[in-house]
Amino acid sequence: MLDIFKVPEEESVRVRAADLRRVVTSLFERVGVPPDDATLGADVLVRADERGVDSHGVSNMLRGYLTGYQEGRINARPEWRVVREQASTATIDCDRGLGIIIGPKAMGLAIQKARETGMGAVTMRNGRHMGMASYHAMLALKHDMIGMAMTAVGANVLPTFGREGRLGTNPVAVAVPANEMHPFVYDVATSMVAANKLQLIRRLDAPIPGNWIADMEGRIISEPGPLPEAGQYKLLPFGGTRELGSHKGYGLAMVVEIMCSILAGALPGAMTQRGPANHFVAAYNIDAFTPVDEFKKTMDEWLRLMEATPPAPGYARVLTPGQEEAEAEVDRAAKGIPLHKEVVQWLEDICKQLEVPFNLREFAASA
Amino acid sequence: MLDIFKVPEEESVRVRAADLRRVVTSLFERVGVPPDDATLGADVLVRADERGVDSHGVSNMLRGYLTGYQEGRINARPEWRVVREQASTATIDCDRGLGIIIGPKAMGLAIQKARETGMGAVTMRNGRHMGMASYHAMLALKHDMIGMAMTAVGANVLPTFGREGRLGTNPVAVAVPANEMHPFVYDVATSMVAANKLQLIRRLDAPIPGNWIADMEGRIISEPGPLPEAGQYKLLPFGGTRELGSHKGYGLAMVVEIMCSILAGALPGAMTQRGPANHFVAAYNIDAFTPVDEFKKTMDEWLRLMEATPPAPGYARVLTPGQEEAEAEVDRAAKGIPLHKEVVQWLEDICKQLEVPFNLREFAASA
Repeated sequence: MLDIFKVPEEESVRVRAADLRRVVTSLFERVGVPPDDATLGADVLVRADERGVDSHGVSNMLRGYLTGYQEGRINARPEWRVVREQASTATIDCDRGLGIIIGPKAMGLAIQKARETGMGAVTMRNGRHMGMASYHAMLALKHDMIGMAMTAVGANVLPTFGREGRLGTNPVAVAVPANEMHPFVYDVATSMVAANKLQLIRRLDAPIPGNWIADMEGRIISEPGPLPEAGQYKLLPFGGTRELGSHKGYGLAMVVEIMCSILAGALPGAMTQRGPANHFVAAYNIDAFTPVDEFKKTMDEWLRLMEATPPAPGYARVLTPGQEEAEAEVDRAAKGIPLHKEVVQWLEDICKQLEVPFNLREFAASA
Repeated sequence: MLDIFKVPEEESVRVRAADLRRVVTSLFERVGVPPDDATLGADVLVRADERGVDSHGVSNMLRGYLTGYQEGRINARPEWRVVREQASTATIDCDRGLGIIIGPKAMGLAIQKARETGMGAVTMRNGRHMGMASYHAMLALKHDMIGMAMTAVGANVLPTFGREGRLGTNPVAVAVPANEMHPFVYDVATSMVAANKLQLIRRLDAPIPGNWIADMEGRIISEPGPLPEAGQYKLLPFGGTRELGSHKGYGLAMVVEIMCSILAGALPGAMTQRGPANHFVAAYNIDAFTPVDEFKKTMDEWLRLMEATPPAPGYARVLTPGQEEAEAEVDRAAKGIPLHKEVVQWLEDICKQLEVPFNLREFAASA
């Protein structure tokens, strides 16, 4: 993680994951989500916090989800259904259900199909925010499968050479099991930076690097500086400038839009005023392609080799995708989840407002 | 295409695609490739030239392929076979056959499976170079399917923070049909730049942008300058620096390696001295997910909308993936394929050497 995303220790309070799950579950239930779904939704959010993916954890996401439920934009009791299906594939209408809750169900279907035919792919229209995409991809791991998840949401990101937003930050996640090593978990926005990460930066009041955003006319801001006010900048596709390959990030965001939206029978973000989030999940059954034991053994050896790559001058080590998150899991299991003080205060306030018990103990105090 | 990749008109000779196909087919046959395979291989190469993808056309690829056949590194008559199979999936051992020739056969299998189950995925070990990855992906188009192709080859690209090459340039291609509009065709290296494009730059003697390569110790060369001699630089993953997101390019290259190599039961490039190329192709049957007519209509409208995005100051227009290639096809059908004079000379020499008729007429002369 870049240092600019780290919450300073003195501004944070460490809380217990179990407490956080309980509070979040109660809040979801309070806005009408059935108990099982509320528990699942809380798990997706808190899992992000446990893995150090603060941008997609409770701090950044919960407020918007609760408001969405309260205002009726998100359906607390969606009647999602499979609208088209073949042996390896399905299309789901999410009935405005939250992606963090319907994603795991769609992934369950993809896993089932992968067990039967070798792989399964499910595209999902009319959904709402998916949270940390890798949560859904990682559900495949315990079945010895490779999981994939992507989501298309909104139209804030400029095409290469463009001055108007036409694409979402459209992340892609891939999770691959190893044996003794941590799983490979890739989860990246196809924009230069996830919109949620900019929110985090705003809270931390940090400057942003050059080539991350453009001004309102689409001129790329190439020097580092403060993040302009909300609504006063445009997001760039991954790559930043054409010379640095922004057409690759832009094109990949379009691939995500096609698989999540158009393949699901929905319109892409640029063609709707304020579109829903559409998703795509897939599972590949490793045993259908090659013996699982050999596969995981090679993954172990390869991840070790990659992480042992001699670093370039000035760097301590080479990382692999999922390594820092696995390390954060160990660290946060031992020390609790650090939440910014403002976030804890907001949680207390919202619990009071919704008449939900606020029993979030400080980690050290409860040890 | 960046201007640095354009062959200046005065240094090129325009030839007829049909002539080029005939010459290349004869050369392939001369080194032992059976006639049907030779015709197919020539089509893959010349199709790249027709689409303006000079980096993967005859100029850059044919010499290495012929040498590979002559030295026995590439098997001219491979007995490729399916070693593991399920309803939607297959693993192929390529028996050292050239990827440009076995790729289309594997894609045929993926398409067949997609017709039966909704999608098909084929991973391919022990192969050789795949040429322009999008050729294989595009084979799905006429079946109203989405095609994907990737290939993992070599270990020249640095991991983020690393000083030793551990990954190939590992391209990803996705082709999606539209109705009246050109197909969406995405085909990008997961490194900052494809190795072949650097060869092209060397031939054109152009400077390269900053953040494209690193020195031999892994220090990123951040300013534009001349391309160092072969073997005196390292390739960077797409993104370039960590701040600009190179972990995303690096991780995506690892995904490609997993799907092409480890899933096929092969070792990744970093674990072999000089590994083969391994590949992965997939087809998604659109009709399994959503009505084809609606899908293509939305693709048309969306591509038009994207291409009509108002450009940022200093830019003429916003492009979509496959648009420039579709324009090049029209242009080159009308004016012939421009080959660098050196390339034409080499073709004449190699034809003489292998006793193959060199009947490459200049385009204008034959009109």
